[in-house]
Amino acid sequence: MLQTPPARVGMAEHEIDTPALVIDLEAFEANLDVMAGIISGAGVKLRAHAKTHKSPVIAHLQMARGAVGQCVQKVAEAEVLAWGGVPDILVSNEVVGADKLARLAALARITRIAVCADDAAQVAAIEAAAASADVTISVLVEIDVGAGRCGVAPGPDAVALAQVIAASPHLTFGGLQAYHGSAQHVRTHAGRHAAIASACDDARRTVEQLRQVGLECAIVGGAGTGTFEMEAASGVYTEIQAGSYCFMDADYAANLDADGRPISRFRHSLFVLSTVMSAAQPGVAVLDAGHKAVAIDSGMPRVWQRPGVSYVGASDEHGKLSIQDGTAVPLVGEKLRLVPGHCDPTVDRFDWYVGVRRGRVECLWPVAARGGFA
Amino acid sequence: MLQTPPARVGMAEHEIDTPALVIDLEAFEANLDVMAGIISGAGVKLRAHAKTHKSPVIAHLQMARGAVGQCVQKVAEAEVLAWGGVPDILVSNEVVGADKLARLAALARITRIAVCADDAAQVAAIEAAAASADVTISVLVEIDVGAGRCGVAPGPDAVALAQVIAASPHLTFGGLQAYHGSAQHVRTHAGRHAAIASACDDARRTVEQLRQVGLECAIVGGAGTGTFEMEAASGVYTEIQAGSYCFMDADYAANLDADGRPISRFRHSLFVLSTVMSAAQPGVAVLDAGHKAVAIDSGMPRVWQRPGVSYVGASDEHGKLSIQDGTAVPLVGEKLRLVPGHCDPTVDRFDWYVGVRRGRVECLWPVAARGGFA
Repeated sequence: MLQTPPARVGMAEHEIDTPALVIDLEAFEANLDVMAGIISGAGVKLRAHAKTHKSPVIAHLQMARGAVGQCVQKVAEAEVLAWGGVPDILVSNEVVGADKLARLAALARITRIAVCADDAAQVAAIEAAAASADVTISVLVEIDVGAGRCGVAPGPDAVALAQVIAASPHLTFGGLQAYHGSAQHVRTHAGRHAAIASACDDARRTVEQLRQVGLECAIVGGAGTGTFEMEAASGVYTEIQAGSYCFMDADYAANLDADGRPISRFRHSLFVLSTVMSAAQPGVAVLDAGHKAVAIDSGMPRVWQRPGVSYVGASDEHGKLSIQDGTAVPLVGEKLRLVPGHCDPTVDRFDWYVGVRRGRVECLWPVAARGGFA
Repeated sequence: MLQTPPARVGMAEHEIDTPALVIDLEAFEANLDVMAGIISGAGVKLRAHAKTHKSPVIAHLQMARGAVGQCVQKVAEAEVLAWGGVPDILVSNEVVGADKLARLAALARITRIAVCADDAAQVAAIEAAAASADVTISVLVEIDVGAGRCGVAPGPDAVALAQVIAASPHLTFGGLQAYHGSAQHVRTHAGRHAAIASACDDARRTVEQLRQVGLECAIVGGAGTGTFEMEAASGVYTEIQAGSYCFMDADYAANLDADGRPISRFRHSLFVLSTVMSAAQPGVAVLDAGHKAVAIDSGMPRVWQRPGVSYVGASDEHGKLSIQDGTAVPLVGEKLRLVPGHCDPTVDRFDWYVGVRRGRVECLWPVAARGGFA
């Protein structure tokens, strides 16, 4: 509830209180530039996913480099971005519940807003909310292209739902949401390629069937940091929804390119800074960052630039390091950077980003849309 | 940063916006009463662990039933409790860093505060902070009784560190911290009993060796919800630090008693209320509570009172339900309660508790000490 920032602008990195969520600003900006360069020649648009960063500040940095807007996963994230001046927001997800839909509709007065649906009754609920607020909302049909989670089947089911949307007086049919989440972390290039080729076929076929009934897709959206170049080259996707590329994490860094080498185009720019709080036992050191500070749903964090030192166990408030024989045990009080296994939920643990450039704190940014809420 | 409460006092449970952190107040109060009853006849004190609830409100409810104070895991939690009027707080953990120790020392002006140490250099740092603030701080020696994390070895190492504390002008030797964390979730009664018997031996031997050099232990603290009756019966532990008992979670509920039956003395009182947001695919339903809303470090949540419906997969913002053949698929918009696998980090995801009694919202309490910070 009451979280003091763990740093002051101008202090040295080693003075930051821990655990803290640190952005290496040079690596972060390089990632934004690399993505902008790839997208600018690819014939698609970037609508970066704010579920990664949860920050209007970062959204604006991405849009200044050409991103057309932002994706979010829930209404609360859309609100925070809209209040922070983001002019074009897609909720790349279903929104269920009259209160949430009323909040969504209210946003249409201050920003361009779109949302997804996979159920005709929910389309009716969005129409009712839009009518009540006297606004028009763009609704995309989510199709399941392999993730097996939300979304109607590609083809006729999607067409039928699109027609329901198009027939709703306060809705416009916005296109297709076709994200293949589970393909993002398939390690081999060939494996990701096969999954995305199938997703592209599903999307292409559905776009053609929609065209046959007179419905055009303004947006065919999807793709993440693991696969976006494949969707971008497909000729069917129009918007890329990558998010993690700005920070990268240990899980994405384990993906391999077509030659079987780790993909290194994006740099790790997000870290959890942590302090050694105990080294009382032989061969062990304990950090003050456990799984309340660094998400472990996609594996343990990696210790940054400390060969022989591994993060092997997380409890609520403790991270256990294993020290290889012959490696110096980190000293009590020493501060180590951790590369999170998964950046999105790690960011969600904190209220403040601490931006660091060449060892100095340059900025504090709020993680404005943090939280387990709706 | 900005989290609106998901409910208003007086509304029905099904009107609560989701995901929300819900306390069943009757079950919760029953748990507090059961623990107070066990402790009152046991010859030990209860110093309930606030790392579970992070709330001065709940701390006071525990103390009104006889708890002598609270444990916390970090300075930020101690601050929030002290500001909320909790008069006796033990940081059952090491605190490292000059800023954190200065904050800790400042609290000694408004509450009774104690902290743990497992390193002589850290004792010197606590002494310096206490001297600078002109206060006296009680310091317990943490001994490792089997968890293999923090703590010096029981016996002579602990005695030597206690003597350093006792010789420090602004510190008093407060006793021993002897928590066996990894024993808490050993499933069998015999397994937990063996681990705690060994911990008790370690603690008893150290207490005796301390006595031989003239040092008495005002506190011998430890124990969690999984084992506290064993420490309480040991004759050596003086304070029980159980926390999860007030809420219970799916992980603790899997512990077995001496007859091999699940322990049912405490009831599930903490839930994540969640809405079905998609049921577009056969045999699947998707909830709006993923691992950003319910911690999965100790296993998936259980769906409350819905036989045949299992929570089988968590992504950031989605929980995937598997529906047994012959079971009705939950409808889009339906609200389900989840029993978290692990209550402490689940609470940490939210800013608000919603207290419910017989289907009505009775109160909103802030999760005041939430956060990944220090």
